[in-house]
Amino acid sequence: MDLRAFIRDIPDFPEPGIVFRDITPLLADAGALDAALEGLAAIARPLKPDVVIAAEARGFLLGAALARELGAGFVLARKPGKLPHDTTSAEYALEYGTDALEVHTDAIAPGSRVLVHDDLLATGGTAGALCALAEQLGGEVVGCAFLIELGFLPGRAALAPHAVHSLIVDAGE
Amino acid sequence: MDLRAFIRDIPDFPEPGIVFRDITPLLADAGALDAALEGLAAIARPLKPDVVIAAEARGFLLGAALARELGAGFVLARKPGKLPHDTTSAEYALEYGTDALEVHTDAIAPGSRVLVHDDLLATGGTAGALCALAEQLGGEVVGCAFLIELGFLPGRAALAPHAVHSLIVDAGE
Repeated sequence: MDLRAFIRDIPDFPEPGIVFRDITPLLADAGALDAALEGLAAIARPLKPDVVIAAEARGFLLGAALARELGAGFVLARKPGKLPHDTTSAEYALEYGTDALEVHTDAIAPGSRVLVHDDLLATGGTAGALCALAEQLGGEVVGCAFLIELGFLPGRAALAPHAVHSLIVDAGE
Repeated sequence: MDLRAFIRDIPDFPEPGIVFRDITPLLADAGALDAALEGLAAIARPLKPDVVIAAEARGFLLGAALARELGAGFVLARKPGKLPHDTTSAEYALEYGTDALEVHTDAIAPGSRVLVHDDLLATGGTAGALCALAEQLGGEVVGCAFLIELGFLPGRAALAPHAVHSLIVDAGE
């Protein structure tokens, strides 16, 4: 199945010059949703993760389903103040300024094999923060799995030495 | 499996007097995550939905995985301004004021059987807005499926005549 055909390009969203990759048509199609999860699971299964970690909101979409398919648990990273129990946090750079993600301190047991997931890899800011959170809690990052990688941006290099596995590599605009 | 044992009560979050139901321990446990999705699918399968609709961020956690388990598509409802294509919106009441959810206008084909999902049913505001969005697009709401229902709040009555199906009914604080 050509999953790229289910991803809609939206020019100038959220701001001029950006071409947004809209995955809502893929999610809304039962066959494409199933194929995307099968594909992600196929590239992630050899990594034998104990848990999958992903950030709100779009990382939640496929993250928990992927965890279940892999027989793993799912760990939520959220914006500051959203998680109710003891948390640890990691900052990451935005175009201007910084943002942060938090995770419950008891969400990852030391020594756990952690797979980082997001729907899209651009510059690697979010995924890098997820790697940092997993390692702060004593987890071992076994790799990063994305639905779409924007191959013309330096996300893959930014995440090194962590391995990047992408179901769709988008070569350019 | 006693799924309630994986849900952590957090007193006075997000504000004094509220007991927050923290589902992160359930999600982080591979067996509990799988059992929760099996249970939700078992109550939702007889409704034969074409699509599952859920709202960011927590509705995404189990919503897409549930859709896949049911052989259905998944439709995202987001806060205003987050979805990049043509949208329709529905307002819902908060304790003070109102909030709104948006969905892409092409996300639900007229006549589709729509299952509304969220992790938790409290007063029914979010789920009611999801029902309204589905119906605005010509969908038929075939029911609402929740992981947890706070049985001491009037959510079930607020969603009538739509049927409410909950995996865990929490009788009181």
